[in-house]
Amino acid sequence: MAIEAWQDKALKAQEARDASLAKVEPPLKGLPIEAELPLNSRNLPREVLTEREIEITEKPVSELLAVLRERRISVEEVTRAFLRRAAVAQVATNCLTSLLWTSAISRAKHLDSLPEPKGALFGLPISTKEHHGMVGENVLSNASYVSWIDKPHGSNVLYDTLWDEGCVFFARTTQPQTIMHLETNSNVYGRTVNPYNRLLTPGGSSGGEAALIGMRGSVLGIGGDIGGSIRCPAAHCGIYGLKPTTQRISLAGSRSHCAGKETILATCGPMATERDSLSLLMQVALSSKPWRIDPGLTNKPWTPYTLPTDRPLKIAVQWWDGVVRPHPPMIRALKEVSEACKKAGMDVVEWDCTGLDHKKAWEITAALYWPDGGEEVLGLLEESGEPVLPLTEFIISEQKSVRKRDMHELWKLCAERDAYRAFYANAWNRTASDGNQEVDVILCPPSFGAATPHDQSRYWGYTAQWNLLDYPGVVFPVTSVDPVKDGKVEGYEPVNEEDRVVYEMYSPERYRDAPVSLQIVGRRGCDEMVLAALEVVERAMGRA
Amino acid sequence: MAIEAWQDKALKAQEARDASLAKVEPPLKGLPIEAELPLNSRNLPREVLTEREIEITEKPVSELLAVLRERRISVEEVTRAFLRRAAVAQVATNCLTSLLWTSAISRAKHLDSLPEPKGALFGLPISTKEHHGMVGENVLSNASYVSWIDKPHGSNVLYDTLWDEGCVFFARTTQPQTIMHLETNSNVYGRTVNPYNRLLTPGGSSGGEAALIGMRGSVLGIGGDIGGSIRCPAAHCGIYGLKPTTQRISLAGSRSHCAGKETILATCGPMATERDSLSLLMQVALSSKPWRIDPGLTNKPWTPYTLPTDRPLKIAVQWWDGVVRPHPPMIRALKEVSEACKKAGMDVVEWDCTGLDHKKAWEITAALYWPDGGEEVLGLLEESGEPVLPLTEFIISEQKSVRKRDMHELWKLCAERDAYRAFYANAWNRTASDGNQEVDVILCPPSFGAATPHDQSRYWGYTAQWNLLDYPGVVFPVTSVDPVKDGKVEGYEPVNEEDRVVYEMYSPERYRDAPVSLQIVGRRGCDEMVLAALEVVERAMGRA
Repeated sequence: MAIEAWQDKALKAQEARDASLAKVEPPLKGLPIEAELPLNSRNLPREVLTEREIEITEKPVSELLAVLRERRISVEEVTRAFLRRAAVAQVATNCLTSLLWTSAISRAKHLDSLPEPKGALFGLPISTKEHHGMVGENVLSNASYVSWIDKPHGSNVLYDTLWDEGCVFFARTTQPQTIMHLETNSNVYGRTVNPYNRLLTPGGSSGGEAALIGMRGSVLGIGGDIGGSIRCPAAHCGIYGLKPTTQRISLAGSRSHCAGKETILATCGPMATERDSLSLLMQVALSSKPWRIDPGLTNKPWTPYTLPTDRPLKIAVQWWDGVVRPHPPMIRALKEVSEACKKAGMDVVEWDCTGLDHKKAWEITAALYWPDGGEEVLGLLEESGEPVLPLTEFIISEQKSVRKRDMHELWKLCAERDAYRAFYANAWNRTASDGNQEVDVILCPPSFGAATPHDQSRYWGYTAQWNLLDYPGVVFPVTSVDPVKDGKVEGYEPVNEEDRVVYEMYSPERYRDAPVSLQIVGRRGCDEMVLAALEVVERAMGRA
Repeated sequence: MAIEAWQDKALKAQEARDASLAKVEPPLKGLPIEAELPLNSRNLPREVLTEREIEITEKPVSELLAVLRERRISVEEVTRAFLRRAAVAQVATNCLTSLLWTSAISRAKHLDSLPEPKGALFGLPISTKEHHGMVGENVLSNASYVSWIDKPHGSNVLYDTLWDEGCVFFARTTQPQTIMHLETNSNVYGRTVNPYNRLLTPGGSSGGEAALIGMRGSVLGIGGDIGGSIRCPAAHCGIYGLKPTTQRISLAGSRSHCAGKETILATCGPMATERDSLSLLMQVALSSKPWRIDPGLTNKPWTPYTLPTDRPLKIAVQWWDGVVRPHPPMIRALKEVSEACKKAGMDVVEWDCTGLDHKKAWEITAALYWPDGGEEVLGLLEESGEPVLPLTEFIISEQKSVRKRDMHELWKLCAERDAYRAFYANAWNRTASDGNQEVDVILCPPSFGAATPHDQSRYWGYTAQWNLLDYPGVVFPVTSVDPVKDGKVEGYEPVNEEDRVVYEMYSPERYRDAPVSLQIVGRRGCDEMVLAALEVVERAMGRA
């Protein structure tokens, strides 16, 4: 048993967070008390912030970078505006583990004092997931484990690059227990809620980032993804999120359990209010040649992809994954976007999952997450005595394929993984048979539906599939749940138990205001192409 | 216990090999009986083959490809010439597991019958390591395990590509027990010896390839490397060999123990009589985009590297690795080549291994080879009852860091590996400090000396170091042991037990005629640069 009660340790972390927020100056005035917060928090910033702060925090990123570079607005003013807006987001969604008031303003002043603006991100405020660590001294991180509260931490390879390019780190954000929920709830910081509807999850595990950016308390943040942890929360909060192919962006220096496990890899990636910020972040991250420092990374520069002009983009629409039928608003989003693509002249076909066995893929994936049966993680929880949360139970103990494996069982599992990857690659290759153009990208749901009510995110297939395959995936906002258009399909007969649970979860009323997003997935290593495809798809949707 | 004695099973494999060689037509005449074979076999082909066969098999590869493409010599005639020369190599060195007489000639006839020559390798005979499998029907492979004799096998991703590009597979070559010796001896096919001196090893594990190519019984072959298995035998047999960064060339489809193990990866690579054949093979292998079929591969085309013209190449010479002092001929080779580089205007500095702890690197590497303590492999040997050979004992049981690990011990080991890789990358980065140009490549020994007497290859550090780091390495011939120039250093005081054994092994007389080669190593992923560097180094040596 722990000597100190876990609640006392957690309280210390919460007090540290609260103390960091208490520095906000001028203090936030006019916010409702928690019990009176509206369901949808998106308008709260306008009620609290100055017009000038609203103007600054709602500028397009390209414009923000331009005014910073041209020194038409000081870095300090921009930083203060985002700090205050992030504080509002915290009240609304509980998305922060720490507001870096002092260090961010000191950094801003330093940047303002430079004779010349320097770096591709000069003066841009960037928010970060807590367990990644941070630039600076006396940094702690706990990765949402009570046992790790007060554990000293350092910076990491990616953050050092962003720092060198002149950014301002100003807020650290929440993640769930074990960092392995598609929601964001921990015994350390409590539950993060969705900016659009506080009865819904912001998703996870990078749910703090998503909620913060969904409130525009940040325009660019860094998440991590091993099963959907960037894409799911980006989708649920109506923002953009990219999970690149692994080993392009460094994770080195992040704190997590299972260090040294390589059965299935995580990756960092950008989460943002705008599409262009995704490629900006990738460009900046890779232009530093991070493989010189983290030699596990692929030595391959970021090379923007130019789509061929002599043929249309070929998009395969995945209407469902053969396991769980998406909710009506998701189907509508797929219809709307694929129709727009067709109208714009693209070659739209179907990504038929029959025979592709996404169910088996999930069983392999879950086993790859916990080749020790979850022993290390459960031990970490036991160490502090903090309760095991339901979604932790779900992802470890309730997965039938998860068990402690010996070395030969591990090799067998990895061989199964590799065989499945080759099998899926072959399915993709076959789209090019008979002289047809190969499918360029898959358009698919990033989840079975919009953000779920709390503790209901128990199906990972729509994101984790692409982690198993290590295919890059980008999520973008499409629409929001519409009670008129998105009525429940009556009389649907679920094809399995998971499908039944998901079907029964839906009613348009529960999902009020919830954003609905889609995902574009490309073959492994085709990160640049996925972003190029997103651009033409959004153009087809009538966006800039 | 095995039902059938292992000797009987091995005999069957030997008989199959002999039957394949008995097809040679016209039969080889005038070869000495085994007891009367000369120490150096390099002149044997001239005593047995026709002038025309010698002419064909000794053409530069570019010329050979040109005459084949222009149909000035038929594929069949070229194939027959190499088949007969390979048969001579077999008598001299015992390098073959099978001569593909029938299928190669039938393939040649097919290629001759095509209206147009097709493919970048049109008509080129290529030899292959036995455990990689083969294109065709009724293929067997045993990977040198008696237990696996008669086991059906198929082709693999790389060989399919070479086949599509018009090559002729004509010979399969030996590898040692477990494919984990730096020599080539197995209970299935016996011992392969060095073309230059039959008392010496050809190296291993791709020793059959090296001996065959060293006899010019093949001009281009495919080996595999996880600890030196391409580079060591290439060095010992005076040929060229490239170990690329892993995951550039596919291994998928090869037969080996420990399938699914990913602690340290092997890679295929070219072994050749000429430098240019290395880039040819890489170019051809990657132009097929093999990552579409083997999705573990890096999606990165082969992009020949152009050395900068505004500064000299910066080469760091590794005189020794801090563990085992190279023999005198190796030191002389380093001196000769580094002097030539200096004269050609290159920036030649030292790669000082002090503080880089190559000894620790080896301990990690050995542990990574056998995270199950070697259990699977030893079980495979026990299954047939075949004896465990001394170099198998050496690489498993005699390595102190090798033991069966549980999952958490495995993760710890992998984390140690990653930390060492980052540490070494940082050392390389530091060569660029203070405004200096970063070191481009390291010039280093591929072994502590020339080919060792049999069963003496017990130090892997000069090659395995670069497997642990996953740095590409290319080996090229430099000189041969010279009793006059390469006298033993008297009075040297070994710094450790391994150093003592290696020191005592040397006397110039034992190494008569042995080739001495060097290795050029680049950073991970810099395969193209390593080959570009080799070209300028060889030019500096006065070669074409």
